[in-house]
Order: sequence, then C-alpha cells, then structure tokens
Amino acid sequence: MTTKNELLTTPVRHIELAEHNVVPLVDAMASMAYSSRDTARAASIYERMLRDGECGVILCLAGSLISAGLQKVFVDMIRNNMVDAIVSTGANIVDQDFFEALGFRHYIAGDEYKYGNGDGELRELMIDRIYDTFIDEEELRICDETTEKIINGMAPKAYSSREIIREMGAYLEREGRTPAAGNNDSIVFAAYEKNVPIFCPAFSDCSAGFGFVAHQHARRGKPVVSIDSAKDFYELTQLKIANPTTGLLMIGGGVPKNFAQDIVVAAEILGVEAPMHKYAVQITVADSRDGALSGSTLKEASSWGKVDTTYEQMVYAEATLALPLIAGYAFHKQAAVARKGKRWAEVLSQMTEPVSA
Amino acid sequence: MTTKNELLTTPVRHIELAEHNVVPLVDAMASMAYSSRDTARAASIYERMLRDGECGVILCLAGSLISAGLQKVFVDMIRNNMVDAIVSTGANIVDQDFFEALGFRHYIAGDEYKYGNGDGELRELMIDRIYDTFIDEEELRICDETTEKIINGMAPKAYSSREIIREMGAYLEREGRTPAAGNNDSIVFAAYEKNVPIFCPAFSDCSAGFGFVAHQHARRGKPVVSIDSAKDFYELTQLKIANPTTGLLMIGGGVPKNFAQDIVVAAEILGVEAPMHKYAVQITVADSRDGALSGSTLKEASSWGKVDTTYEQMVYAEATLALPLIAGYAFHKQAAVARKGKRWAEVLSQMTEPVSA
Amino acid sequence: MTTKNELLTTPVRHIELAEHNVVPLVDAMASMAYSSRDTARAASIYERMLRDGECGVILCLAGSLISAGLQKVFVDMIRNNMVDAIVSTGANIVDQDFFEALGFRHYIAGDEYKYGNGDGELRELMIDRIYDTFIDEEELRICDETTEKIINGMAPKAYSSREIIREMGAYLEREGRTPAAGNNDSIVFAAYEKNVPIFCPAFSDCSAGFGFVAHQHARRGKPVVSIDSAKDFYELTQLKIANPTTGLLMIGGGVPKNFAQDIVVAAEILGVEAPMHKYAVQITVADSRDGALSGSTLKEASSWGKVDTTYEQMVYAEATLALPLIAGYAFHKQAAVARKGKRWAEVLSQMTEPVSA
Amino acid sequence: MTTKNELLTTPVRHIELAEHNVVPLVDAMASMAYSSRDTARAASIYERMLRDGECGVILCLAGSLISAGLQKVFVDMIRNNMVDAIVSTGANIVDQDFFEALGFRHYIAGDEYKYGNGDGELRELMIDRIYDTFIDEEELRICDETTEKIINGMAPKAYSSREIIREMGAYLEREGRTPAAGNNDSIVFAAYEKNVPIFCPAFSDCSAGFGFVAHQHARRGKPVVSIDSAKDFYELTQLKIANPTTGLLMIGGGVPKNFAQDIVVAAEILGVEAPMHKYAVQITVADSRDGALSGSTLKEASSWGKVDTTYEQMVYAEATLALPLIAGYAFHKQAAVARKGKRWAEVLSQMTEPVSA
Repeated sequence: MTTKNELLTTPVRHIELAEHNVVPLVDAMASMAYSSRDTARAASIYERMLRDGECGVILCLAGSLISAGLQKVFVDMIRNNMVDAIVSTGANIVDQDFFEALGFRHYIAGDEYKYGNGDGELRELMIDRIYDTFIDEEELRICDETTEKIINGMAPKAYSSREIIREMGAYLEREGRTPAAGNNDSIVFAAYEKNVPIFCPAFSDCSAGFGFVAHQHARRGKPVVSIDSAKDFYELTQLKIANPTTGLLMIGGGVPKNFAQDIVVAAEILGVEAPMHKYAVQITVADSRDGALSGSTLKEASSWGKVDTTYEQMVYAEATLALPLIAGYAFHKQAAVARKGKRWAEVLSQMTEPVSA
Repeated sequence: MTTKNELLTTPVRHIELAEHNVVPLVDAMASMAYSSRDTARAASIYERMLRDGECGVILCLAGSLISAGLQKVFVDMIRNNMVDAIVSTGANIVDQDFFEALGFRHYIAGDEYKYGNGDGELRELMIDRIYDTFIDEEELRICDETTEKIINGMAPKAYSSREIIREMGAYLEREGRTPAAGNNDSIVFAAYEKNVPIFCPAFSDCSAGFGFVAHQHARRGKPVVSIDSAKDFYELTQLKIANPTTGLLMIGGGVPKNFAQDIVVAAEILGVEAPMHKYAVQITVADSRDGALSGSTLKEASSWGKVDTTYEQMVYAEATLALPLIAGYAFHKQAAVARKGKRWAEVLSQMTEPVSA
Repeated sequence: MTTKNELLTTPVRHIELAEHNVVPLVDAMASMAYSSRDTARAASIYERMLRDGECGVILCLAGSLISAGLQKVFVDMIRNNMVDAIVSTGANIVDQDFFEALGFRHYIAGDEYKYGNGDGELRELMIDRIYDTFIDEEELRICDETTEKIINGMAPKAYSSREIIREMGAYLEREGRTPAAGNNDSIVFAAYEKNVPIFCPAFSDCSAGFGFVAHQHARRGKPVVSIDSAKDFYELTQLKIANPTTGLLMIGGGVPKNFAQDIVVAAEILGVEAPMHKYAVQITVADSRDGALSGSTLKEASSWGKVDTTYEQMVYAEATLALPLIAGYAFHKQAAVARKGKRWAEVLSQMTEPVSA
Repeated sequence: MTTKNELLTTPVRHIELAEHNVVPLVDAMASMAYSSRDTARAASIYERMLRDGECGVILCLAGSLISAGLQKVFVDMIRNNMVDAIVSTGANIVDQDFFEALGFRHYIAGDEYKYGNGDGELRELMIDRIYDTFIDEEELRICDETTEKIINGMAPKAYSSREIIREMGAYLEREGRTPAAGNNDSIVFAAYEKNVPIFCPAFSDCSAGFGFVAHQHARRGKPVVSIDSAKDFYELTQLKIANPTTGLLMIGGGVPKNFAQDIVVAAEILGVEAPMHKYAVQITVADSRDGALSGSTLKEASSWGKVDTTYEQMVYAEATLALPLIAGYAFHKQAAVARKGKRWAEVLSQMTEPVSA
C-alpha cells in the first residue's frame, strides 16, 4: 500500500496573474464564438467595472477554488484594489485559504483517483479528496482547532462572519504568518490589511463550524460566541446603501451568488431605493434547466430587480480555465491602476450596529 | 403589453405520491441502464433506509423544488414518517413553502420566457421568474413582512434556524393556515406537527433574511433576534450522536449536502465516534468535474469519512423527473409503514442548550 | 480474477410500454416545472403528431439506446404504427438491435466499473463496456461476420443503407430469428415486416463497417458492394416530397438529427417547396453552449427553415428516463389507434432510382 | 426590422497560434486542478505524440469549429506537420471551411439571439444561426451549388469522401482560391497541398449532401457519382496498417471519434494485429452518463481494445477555450519541428483499390 507521504508529494501551485499577459489572447477570443467570446466579453465587463470609479466590486466565491490553484489570483485582486468585498463559501476562506495561511498545502492527486477508485485506501490514510486534489486530514484538524482557539478568545456574543474572519486575519498577523515574515500571502490576511470585508453567509458550513461546535459544546449553559448570518446580510446591505453603484464578479453560484444579489432588495426593504447591480459576470459549469439558482441566468435575476442587463455575462466554463483569463485581462490592462480600495471594512466598523442579545 | 393577471393564471400543481404507483415502472428500470438504473437503485436504497428501524433519515433540499411542484411529495414524506430531519436552503422553506402556506401560488410561465426573452417586461410587472415559473413579487413581499412580524414577536437572543422555523409553524397554526381549516398543507406545518426539525444553515439567504434585516434595522442599538448557524450545526450533530445510524436523501447539493455530511466529523470533534452515514442518495444535475461540492460523488465523501459506500447512489437527473419515482417507490412499497417518526424536535427541546449571549 | 461468465450474468431487460400506463403521471407532470413539464409537453406533441393523419413520423436514434433497455419501446412503436421511418446511428441498429436479434444479450455491469476502474481486466476478458453495460466481444465478432456474409450475398453495386438493412431483415426471416419462431422481436425485423425504412447515414461507422471492410478487402480489384449515403439522403428527401407533413421524434442528436432536419432543404434544392417539419421533439443531455448540432435548440433549426416552432420541445433528460414516459403516454392514450402505417419502404421500392455506377 | 446587412457586419476572426505563446500559461496550469490541469496534461500528450517520429496523428473534428474561429488553428497544424489525417463531420469541412475558402464569412451574432429570440426574423432574412453566429443562407446555397458542380465533373462511380474532398482542393487551386493568389488559406486547400487526407464518414450529412442530391436527381436512370463510406473506412484502416503507431487528437465526439477509434478493430478483422492508438486526447463538453459515445471516456475505449491508457486525457471544456491552449502549446514548444508530414494521401493513391461497381 502506498504511504501517506508518497501520495502527498506534489503541491498545487497557485497561478500568478502578473506572469501571464493574456490580453492579446483574450482580445483574439472576442472575435471567436461560444465560451471564448463569452470569456472575452466577461473580461471587458470586469475591466469596465474597475474603471468605473463609483463602482464597488463584490467578488463571490463558490466551489473549491483555493485548493485548485486560484488563491494567488484572489490575493492579487485584493492587493491591487480589484475587489472591495468578498462573499464566499466557508470552505474557500477557512478550510482552504486560512489552512494554507497556516503553512499547509493542497496536493495533486493522480488521474486514477478522480473517479473514486481508491477512496477506501485514502480513508485509512486520513487523506481527504477533492476530485483530483488531496488534503491531509490531520492538518485540517489543526485548522479546525485553530478556529476554535480564535473563537474561544472572543467575547461571547453574536458576530457577523465578517467580524470573525477579521479576527482570523488578526491572528495571522499576531502569529507572524504573513508575507513580511516570509510566509505565503493569503486572502484572509490580504483582506485584513486592505480592509476588504469577507462574508461567509453559511459560516457554520466549513472548518469554522467545527470550531464553533467545539466551542459551544465546551461552554454549555454559559454564554457563547455565536454567528449571526442576519448581521452579515445587514452589513452587506449597508455597503450597498453607502455605495449604490455595484458590480458582481461571481465564480460559481450557491449561497454567495444569491446573497450578494439579494442586497438590492434588502436595501429597498430598508426604504432605500438602491439601483440594481450595474455590472455582473458569472463563471459557472451549472446550467439553467433545473431551475436552481447556481445556474440561473443573470437575465433571470433582472426579473427580480437584482441585476441590470446592460453589462452582464454568463461564462459557462470551469473557473481554473476562465478566471486567469478574465482577471488577468483586467490586471494587465491596468484597469484598476487609478482605483483606490473602498476600505469597506472601515465603513462597517463606523456603523451603529444592532446589538445581538 | 400583457397584464400581470394574464401571466399569473395557471398555477403549478403539486404531484401526489399516492396517486401514482410507480413500483412496476421503477422495478423495470432496475434492469435497464444509465439514469433509469441509477434511479431504481436509489429508490431501493431509500426503501432500505426506511425499513432499517435504527436509521434516522435526513432529507436535504437545494434548488427550487417547491415552486416546481414537489411540495406535496415532501409533505407526504413527513406525514408518513419517511423523514426525520430536513436540511434545506432557505428559499425552499420560506420563499416557496411558507409562501404557499400563506395562500399564495407559483405560476406556469410560457416556454418563450425560459431564456430571458421578456425579463424586462416582467420587471415592470413585478413578476419574478424562476426558469419556467412565475411569482408575484408583491405576494413575496407579504411573505417577507410575515417573517419580520414573527421575528419581532420573539425574545431577542440567538436562535438556530430550526427554532425560528418552528415559530413559523406555530404561526400557521395560530392563523388557521392549516389543512384542518381547509387550507393547503405545507412542509413547515407538517414538520411542526410531526416534530420534524427543519434546518436552514444559510437562513439569512432567503425571504427570512429580508425579515431579519428589517427587524435588526428597526432595532439598531437595542437587543435583537439573531440566527446562530453554529447552533444549527450543534443541534444536528447532537441528533447524530443520539441516533448514530443515519441515511441521507439529498436533492441537489450546496450547503445542505455539505452541512448534513459534516455532522459525522463534528460528532468526532465532540469526542463521539459516530459512524459514517450508512445510506446516501443524491439527485443532481451537477457534475463532478469542477471540484465543487454540489456535484462531487458520494465516493469522494467517503474519503472524508462522511459517507459509507455500501449503500450510496448518485442519480444524475433533474429532480422533478427522478424524485416522484424514488419517493413514490418507497411510498407504494410501504417501506415506512412499520416506522415511527423519531420526533427529533422533541429530542432537541430536551437538550441542555448553549446560551448565546 | 473474475471470470467472463461471472461478469456476464444479468442481462439488460427491455422495458415494455404496454405494462406501464404512465398517462396519469405524465399528466401530473404537465403542471410541474423544468424537465417534468418539458417531458409532458413533448409527450403531448408526440400524441398530436400521431393523431394528425397526414403526418409522417420520423424517429431519430443516437446514443446507445438498445443496449440500455429501450429496444422493445422502438419495436412496439413500429408494430403499433407509431413511426414511419427511422434514422439512426449504425451502432443502435447493427451492433445492438441486430446483435440481439441474433440471440445475444447486453449485460448489467456493476457500479464499480462505470468510471473505468477495471477496463484493463475487461480488455483481457474480451468484454466491451458501454458505461454501465457489458458486451461479449466474441459475440460482437459473430455479428460483424454475419453482416459480411449478408453483404457477400448481394450483387456488387452501390446501395443505400436502407437497402442493406432491409437485407438484414430478410436474413432474420430466412434464418428464423423471428418472434413467430419463438425468438425475440427486433427493430430490424419489425421494420422489415411493417415496411418502415431504416437509414443509417454513417453506416460504415458500426459493426456493418467491419463487414464492409472485410468484404471490400477480400474483393480487391473486383466489383464490390458499396454504401452510398448520398442515396440515403436522396431517398429520405423523396419521402418528404411524397408526404409533406412530417414530425420528428429525436433521441439524442448527432448525424441522425442533422440528416433528418436537412431533408426540408434538400427538397427545396430539388425544386419542391416542402414545408418545415411541423412537429419536433428532442430528448438529449447535450447542451447548446458549444454550438454543436447535438444540443442546438429546435428554435435554432427554425432559423435554417427546417423545423416549425409551434410544436417543438427540447427535453433535457437522459433517454431511459424520459422516453418510456413520452412514448408510453402516446401509446396508452391510443394516439395511433386510427393510424395506418405509411409503408414508406414500398413507396421507395417504386421510385425510379438513380443508377450508382 | 433590422436588415440583413446590419446583422452580417462583424465577421468571426480566426485565432492565430503563432501570435500567442501559451507555453508559460499551460505550464502553470499543470500544477493547478480540474480542467486547467487536464488541459495541460492533454497539451503535453499532444506534444509527446508529435515528438514520437513513428506516430501518425489523426485529428477528429465534430461540432461547429470552423464557424467559431478555429479554422486557422487547423490550417496551421496542417502546414506545420502537426497532423497526418483528418476525420471530420461534413459541416466543418464543406459548409464552413470550403465555404470560407470560397470567400464567404461567418458573422458574430448579438448575445440576444443566442436563446432563440429572433429566429423567426432570421428565417425571413435568410440568415442561418449557429448558437451565437450567423451565416448568409444565400451564400450557403452557392456552396451547395459549387459542390454539385464539382461532383458533376467527376466520372460516375463510387468514391470515398476523401477522394471527393481532394477534388474540392483541386477546384480551389484551379479557381485561384489560394493564399498564393491573395485569398485566405483553408483546411481543404492546405490538406490538398500537404497530402493530408480528409475523411467525412457521414458525407451526405452536409452541404455536399445537397450537391449529391441535386446530382443524383438530375441523372435519374443514368450512372451517378456515389459516396462509399465503406471505402473511407477501408482507406483509414490501411493507413493504420501501414503506420501502426497512431495518436488521436479529438475535438468533440460523434462519428469522427467512433470511426477513428474503430480502425484498430478493422485492422484486426483484416488479419493484421495493429496496436491500440498509443496516444489519445479528447476535448468535449459531453458527459459520460448517458452512455453515448461522444462523452464516453477513453478508458472505456480501452475495454474495446481501441485506445491505450498510458497517454490518454479527456478535457471537459469547450473547444474554443481549450484548443488554442493545447495546440498552441505544442506549436510553441516546436514539438513538430523535426517532424515530416506522413503524406498519407500519396500512400492511399498507391493502394490497389477495391472496384466499386
């Protein structure tokens, strides 16, 4: 039997936007058809939203993107003022990004593991699989324990996921898990430094959830730290109200897509006539025929009054192929060069906040 | 221009399990190939988990299923002791099921609307579209307001989504929106009566979220009701610990799938050696190639120690086709006839609960 | 190592339309959404084309359908005057239907073979795999040789595939491989008896191709039997001209779909103003985004003047699930009860035919 | 109403391999996951088959690829000895490539046409649509007539599609539709010059089919030109026998994939023990779950003894995104620089051929 070490040898490496000037390639694709033309149009919409000084850019992440080699793309987007807020599944932010920030890696699995041939053996070795990628389950447990430790250190009350993720950034700083100290950069830390708020509306559904379960279990009968996802929604809606022109760059669908689209309606419910998202791009492999939100078209979202249809583009492609082209295009066209970050985390910390009991 | 009334004429009608004895059809499919054989195998696994007296059955719902005519299938499953807990997206439970419980309906959209031709017009008419289905946005706002009213009536503290959804069931009883009073039955009400807990781990991501935003906004600076999704996770984990043998019937993927699978690991984190889910069926149109959780195979989940592989089946089909066959098969084979409901909601109300500050 | 006999034990069994009255189920689906509603609408369009006395019904087959348990559905459609011509891939007609007519069977493969785990072993055992189904390669070679024998018995000249497939029907009759003699019925034999022409426009691309290669190789330098696919096209176009009202029932896409749609244009090229196909249904899992014909919508075909859009329906579902519902619906509604077969094979044998040199 | 000229303004432009050095990008993708890693592995397998001096490279084309801006990729592959034979759908070669060789173009359609909104109008304007691309139907008719003219000029007998396509190359030379004369290069012409045989096994299923129908109709009762697809199969099998080491680069599935894979078995039937295809890459958006050949895995093909599994890779992506990366990688790594074309058309013209009566 193969040993654990033999299987965890080749780490996934994160692609670097700066190294690949894809502008001529994407420009050529604009005159082709199907996904290539859609990709080129999406790239130009993302460029346009960055050049629009008023526009706040919200990045939505679903699917296992960090484990797939896209961490550095998102870090570069944060560092280069190409994104103002992030709405994500918990797994991307905690199990994968924060996990790598702690010094762990994802590993390349051989093609023969892709279809489930070998999962029994992996189980015994405590190796977790994401399609063609391996994770050391023992390292993942350290990640769970680290989130528990962070939660234990917070005053017992209800927090938005954003506030807790900010604490995770502070933890990385305290522990010296920073680029300045010779470690890899991460989304959590870059967002902490650049004041980009990160929301995980289903925050219990990830490694942090394990931390929370342990925390709340240990403190039965005593006050605990809780996650108020309603507060997440309230905070993001406040940002929409403070900065009415917005654009969405969505990778995958799921909760992040729905949540980010819904803030237009939420603003209305608070009595503020907020405009629909002015720009919207979604990269997905889902399709629209089962009626699920993940694959539903942006035109459909316009019937709900959430997304304007002038600058919207669905790209039906897998993100590791499409995102380096779309983000790389905007990067190398220097679309954000005149742009300042909106520092939305600061905006939120100045808000009068509701008091969760 | 067509009027709103002209577009909202033909309601979606919910299919009735009792009226369609699909047993011979599904049995024939067992000797065919591809999705028909997978469907038949999934049906027999669901039958098997119902006949296993020890097994607690967790139903996971993602995608717009209630609006698609499947409400009565789930109600019948609850009423006939075919499900012990539900983990769902908020939209299915609040925007669609509770919405219909309030007396509203979903409407059939013409084929010509499916691909976005007409969304501008729909926007003006305040009609929301889900693929081939229409919703009256003004009725949806009433649903938002009703959740706000319910939330306003609760003592300010952190609740699991389950507790809040239970309040919604109590509201329906108080208001007489029950079958006994001549109204349609609903998932929320049937689950309330049968003590089946319903969890929406991303509860702010639906109509209830709008209710919460309004509630928390109105009470800025004062104690508010909040949703603690960590508590959801804690509660569902407690059920796994109390009833170690479990089976999953999952429609779609997303947060409900991940959340329900994760409780095996969460139990372990609490120091309890809980077995993997013994049975697992997933109906989905997603595929596994983008590495996202929604389409990831159940074999992959076994590498994480979450799902056993003896009785697992992926069915790659759209749920409105596959679920009436799978649920109908178990229903007409009377698989649950000797089964009592686990009344898990009562189990939870007897737990010593953490105190969210 | 498993033996060949152990792997080839459980044959695929063909579903019987007569045994499953799906009318109430399909009628219920008409009021639901997504694929169920599409399926119901497709069923009612197929019903409508059968009730239209003028309409000639062309059935198009792509994908491995016979090996999947659908043979009897097509046989029943032929025997009950529910189809007037068939356009198919060669594999369905020769490697699968004629193969079973020779007394061979397809076998159920265990779930663990689906994803390629075990193909090396299968290779050694001379077992061929189609996803979840096994074929004995030695039996398939007998099928190849039988087609060679039939070809060897024909006068050397150019034939349409239809003429050769008709010879295969005559062969079955001569050899007593008929239901009257206690054998299973087959598409090739039923079509032979009912004068339903079968076209395989890419006829070399199947077991018959192996027969042809052997035949032409053995006769190098001498006159050979050849397949003129242009003659196929010419013949089917003549049928369109003789019977202008037509409907298409298409399972899968590929060459059969394109070929059958194209006869409208071909008639025009012969100077006859033929109407577009009046009815069209396609069942497919392909999608439209790659621009390939297989998944292209029937609306797109209308831009080419091939398909009218009043009665067209795409059903995005796998055929083993959707076809028993669609064909069974028309069958149990007795849509074809007043219908006589068009006996198109006789029409063609009376045509003045081109002389292939 | 928009005029035809207004809709046919922006031509599709073909991407140029030489202009985009994708090597660093593809190398980075090799350390990522999902489709990007698959793409990188496919690129390195294609590189490897070009560096293997013994290997004959067979390119298979299905889907509308030329209309999508990939014509120049294939022309460059031919001109740079990166392909030895082509197996294609008729539409790519005749309706699209030969069509452009005649001086016509494909045009970009606005996003609003993609989903069928406007097909009625297009029908009236005689504009044909392929997803997001327009074709002038009147120009397509000229293409049909040109093939008829070429066929009319040939001696009446049975030809392989390869022989007829070669005539189309000769026609372009005679008519001066060559790069030397200032016109665009084409697959048909480049293959003619480089002695790369092109096979369209379902040759009646394209614009050439219209030419044939007209030809055979005009000559009823007289000897006609016919297409013998069995001869295609025989010829390609002879090439496999003459050059046993082969690799497949397949875009899409359908008849070309099946046909090219089958020659291994056909050789065996002729008594020659030919090795399986040593290398195989397929780019497709189809999936394997419906059992159809287009999406079936290359591992499955190995159970049939057609494809070796050491160097095989499925890439689940749309071709306009993936092919410029895969072909461009091999091009810029100069994988074929030491390679001479196999000039297989010459090999075939020296064969003793069967005499089709």
